[in-house]
Amino acid sequence: MTLYKIRVYPDGIEGLVEAETSLLNALERLGVRLETLCGGAGWCGQCLVKAKGHLSEVSPVETDLISEDKLKEGYRLACQTYIKGDVDVEIPSQTRTYAHRILTTGIKTEDLRINPAVKSYNINLSPPSLDDQRSDLDRIEEAIGFKLEIPGINMLKDMPEILRENAFNIEVISYYKSLLEIRRPENKSIYGVAIDIGTTTVVVYLLDLRKGEIDVISAMNPQAKRGADVISRIDYAAKGGLEELQTSIVEEINSLIDQLCDRQGIENRDIYDVAVVGNTTMMHLFLGISPRYIAVSPYIPVFTKSLMVRASEIGIDINPNGICYILPNIAGYIGADTVGMILATGLYKEDGVRLALDIGTNGEMVLKDGDKIFSCSTAAGPAFEGANITYGMRGSRGAIDHVNIDDGHIIVHVIDDVEPVGICGSGLLDAVAVMLELGLLDETGRIIKPGGSLFESLVREKNNGLEFLLEAHNKKIPINQRDIRELQLAKGAIRSGIEILLEEAGRTYSDIETIYLAGAFGTYLDPESAIKIGLLPPVPLNKVYSVGNAAGEGAKLALIDVDFREIAEDISRKVRYIELSSRIDFQDKFMDSLYFEVVR
Amino acid sequence: MTLYKIRVYPDGIEGLVEAETSLLNALERLGVRLETLCGGAGWCGQCLVKAKGHLSEVSPVETDLISEDKLKEGYRLACQTYIKGDVDVEIPSQTRTYAHRILTTGIKTEDLRINPAVKSYNINLSPPSLDDQRSDLDRIEEAIGFKLEIPGINMLKDMPEILRENAFNIEVISYYKSLLEIRRPENKSIYGVAIDIGTTTVVVYLLDLRKGEIDVISAMNPQAKRGADVISRIDYAAKGGLEELQTSIVEEINSLIDQLCDRQGIENRDIYDVAVVGNTTMMHLFLGISPRYIAVSPYIPVFTKSLMVRASEIGIDINPNGICYILPNIAGYIGADTVGMILATGLYKEDGVRLALDIGTNGEMVLKDGDKIFSCSTAAGPAFEGANITYGMRGSRGAIDHVNIDDGHIIVHVIDDVEPVGICGSGLLDAVAVMLELGLLDETGRIIKPGGSLFESLVREKNNGLEFLLEAHNKKIPINQRDIRELQLAKGAIRSGIEILLEEAGRTYSDIETIYLAGAFGTYLDPESAIKIGLLPPVPLNKVYSVGNAAGEGAKLALIDVDFREIAEDISRKVRYIELSSRIDFQDKFMDSLYFEVVR
Repeated sequence: MTLYKIRVYPDGIEGLVEAETSLLNALERLGVRLETLCGGAGWCGQCLVKAKGHLSEVSPVETDLISEDKLKEGYRLACQTYIKGDVDVEIPSQTRTYAHRILTTGIKTEDLRINPAVKSYNINLSPPSLDDQRSDLDRIEEAIGFKLEIPGINMLKDMPEILRENAFNIEVISYYKSLLEIRRPENKSIYGVAIDIGTTTVVVYLLDLRKGEIDVISAMNPQAKRGADVISRIDYAAKGGLEELQTSIVEEINSLIDQLCDRQGIENRDIYDVAVVGNTTMMHLFLGISPRYIAVSPYIPVFTKSLMVRASEIGIDINPNGICYILPNIAGYIGADTVGMILATGLYKEDGVRLALDIGTNGEMVLKDGDKIFSCSTAAGPAFEGANITYGMRGSRGAIDHVNIDDGHIIVHVIDDVEPVGICGSGLLDAVAVMLELGLLDETGRIIKPGGSLFESLVREKNNGLEFLLEAHNKKIPINQRDIRELQLAKGAIRSGIEILLEEAGRTYSDIETIYLAGAFGTYLDPESAIKIGLLPPVPLNKVYSVGNAAGEGAKLALIDVDFREIAEDISRKVRYIELSSRIDFQDKFMDSLYFEVVR
Repeated sequence: MTLYKIRVYPDGIEGLVEAETSLLNALERLGVRLETLCGGAGWCGQCLVKAKGHLSEVSPVETDLISEDKLKEGYRLACQTYIKGDVDVEIPSQTRTYAHRILTTGIKTEDLRINPAVKSYNINLSPPSLDDQRSDLDRIEEAIGFKLEIPGINMLKDMPEILRENAFNIEVISYYKSLLEIRRPENKSIYGVAIDIGTTTVVVYLLDLRKGEIDVISAMNPQAKRGADVISRIDYAAKGGLEELQTSIVEEINSLIDQLCDRQGIENRDIYDVAVVGNTTMMHLFLGISPRYIAVSPYIPVFTKSLMVRASEIGIDINPNGICYILPNIAGYIGADTVGMILATGLYKEDGVRLALDIGTNGEMVLKDGDKIFSCSTAAGPAFEGANITYGMRGSRGAIDHVNIDDGHIIVHVIDDVEPVGICGSGLLDAVAVMLELGLLDETGRIIKPGGSLFESLVREKNNGLEFLLEAHNKKIPINQRDIRELQLAKGAIRSGIEILLEEAGRTYSDIETIYLAGAFGTYLDPESAIKIGLLPPVPLNKVYSVGNAAGEGAKLALIDVDFREIAEDISRKVRYIELSSRIDFQDKFMDSLYFEVVR
């Protein structure tokens, strides 16, 4: 085993790390944890560091996500870079700030109690004799101190030989009170995986159940080829595609687990526990249960409660006796991912009025007020994901992702600082905020062109009306009236949901102490712009926190400490779900929320 | 449906019964229960009745078991005779006495509480609406009043359609708190089977879990072709035959269950619960778990505790979600059948000193004294089953089964009153008792020939010594010195076990208030002879009760009222197993017990 020295600036930390470790893992081992959205899969770019020394070649992912100039300066993605000699790493403040921000608002792992459902006992039994004729199983039970439930006969079949071949020196693995396995004491750890099944992405975290997270990987949800949103997936399932959708997500998860095992040099059979979150439809599809009645009024799921299922029954390739724990859902459109978010933000235990949002095609939102938790879900549409916008795109290379006014100038930021090809959700949000600030939108959302030469280059007349122009690298990206309308519908849906929750609690926005923003869009958006356009209510900026993939964090918590499962159950029982389609006042609130308050 | 009138004499009861009902079942429906050893399978002959009227033809089984004369008088086996018109039935006092004797010492079914593990709930749910968006599962749970454990995802897959196709009017079947099935409310009952797996015979009882026993069937244990006793089965299993032995018993049980279902017009899938007893080795083989360490010192089973296993995991063909409950064992040679016997006799709850014996190739015995229960097992050998005896045979047609002295004459009874071909266990026991009474044995068991012509025809000299002759139908069946020695070894083993138990409890035989004799041999033997030869200690005859197949009765109890499972667990924990091979005093006791006390 070759060890190399790694020094971290400006912290001044240094330590020895094995060759071929990724910088991200190396930093973590030295206690410097960089929070990433993609969990090291290489698509979020949040682990940007400046590194010098003997390192792996720049990967295509890095060429894609890091500008040429920055690559020349030595910028690398820590998750994509492997150590091949002594290395100096500098963590830029922007990476640090981001990481810090998540850590302080998300979960502090150092507070965590390690208390998994899976426990292991190394026991050294006295061999049987005529004076001690206890059965093999009784002998084991008395050594571990409790009666085991035997979930399957196969577990007893090898037991007598394993006991005798190892001179009654064995390791017992249990799941709660249930026997999972009797194995030779090989000094191996026990592992679990936490899975967040998103409609678009699936993320799998590998945890050492005696220590905590050790690796993470992600991929696109392969079901996406059968429909981008939940409704089209349900349709496909109802028309005979249920088994295909289940098989495809299970196979993808198995492939991700295999990759994690390869990377970490462990075997699938050493993974005993799985905790799963996702929206209610994803949870149904994962288990092969038809979600068809979620799609039609009154939107009824087959189950919402948490379930424990043998992994082998679903086809998840871990230990043959391993278990999948499905976190509880709340309703057809508030799933286990929202329960995970409530868990991970700590919302459930906080005093005062707190709001948490996960904004995607659907916006799920939760309001905590004292003992009560309210939730609702609104269909925001895909505008925030860059879809249905004339020049809309996802937040990747060439997308305008931020716009602001600095010292009288409009600053347009393009991902990778290249010629822009379009605009993503966070860029659109900023652009509209800037338009409002410049007086280019009236309160109904109509684009207006004030007099004065200043605006000549910003607003132009086209056949279908006025357009606002964003310029970078001498290229202009237009935003037209239809784009503004799409954004208005999206922000109106979210904002009216927030208003209904506040009304339900008898509160106003001034009572809100914290707003947590979860998920990818929630992480990238500029809270100031979100408030300016009215997506969020006008609260002081220091009350708004991005919390990254809170749903996945929730699943990890349920894996590492079973007390969080109890809390999740409590949460799922306590949360009052408000069905907006049954509210007479929702349409009013929605109409009101479409408008802008003109800022200037 | 055609109904016929049946009149029972001398009771004077009459009632209407469906055509093609067996007389045994018809009698039971009228409240006249005949206890049988074979449970209606047709081999024990204990349901002998005299019947007149329109009945099914005499079956080959009846021709085999009933003498020609008696057939002419109208004697039939109630279990083999089916009603085809109005019928008068007379129950002979010998049949009645036997039945009565069992009933008073066994279980009085009228005292039983119907409280099975499987319960069914017919529920009528309010359909979902926008004001009531509970998931299907939550809706069901709230209707039945408790949270269901979901043991397998497949149970949820059909649920939404079954709910909606039946307008939310459904039947929920649960096993304790666990969901077994959601089904259309078809007004079907729920069924269970109790199984007693003996080394030689397997008996399957069918129970309506809302009413009690409705049918029973039995067959030879097909494993017998791989060895008559437990040790040879274990050897065969250890040499690669484990799977074959498991498969053969499971297939036999499935065939018996199929026959019961056919007879009763029910479907296998309506059977949800199975309770199983048998000796510890049979329990291992049934589950496919190697019993190899039971065969060698210190005789360690893999498990003794009770287990609940999915029937599908073992291959038992009942409802796909059905469960097998394996009653607890106590040690390698005291199995779930002994726990069943303790349950069925009520021994566990009785005051005072009580002894229960199940004598076969192995003798299992239990002594209850106040709060304590002691047990041991001794290898009696096959003498009581007619094996290793020169003219030994099983208790079937042509076997001398009883011998006694009446008014100075030796009365030899042959099964079916035919020319004798051999002698069975109970006959041998009686014969030896008669020899002792006549002074033909000394206390060491040596055959002696007193002077006087009286004995000329009873004892003859052969090359290998003296022989005692039993004569019937002018045919003589001899018992020689070697036969006496075999019997001495068998009775010595049993009696010394009893002595050890009494010593362990600090008791003598005069403290014994009851002796229960279970199993086939226990049912047929003459207690007076058993006492005379010293197999049983000298207690007043009215303290000795035959209790029939108590092990099977115990399994039925565990099926019909789960409280008996708790009691079985308590029993299995409480019983102290005494390993005779580790007792220095056992050989002494055994040697002492070989001798006879000369009665005359």
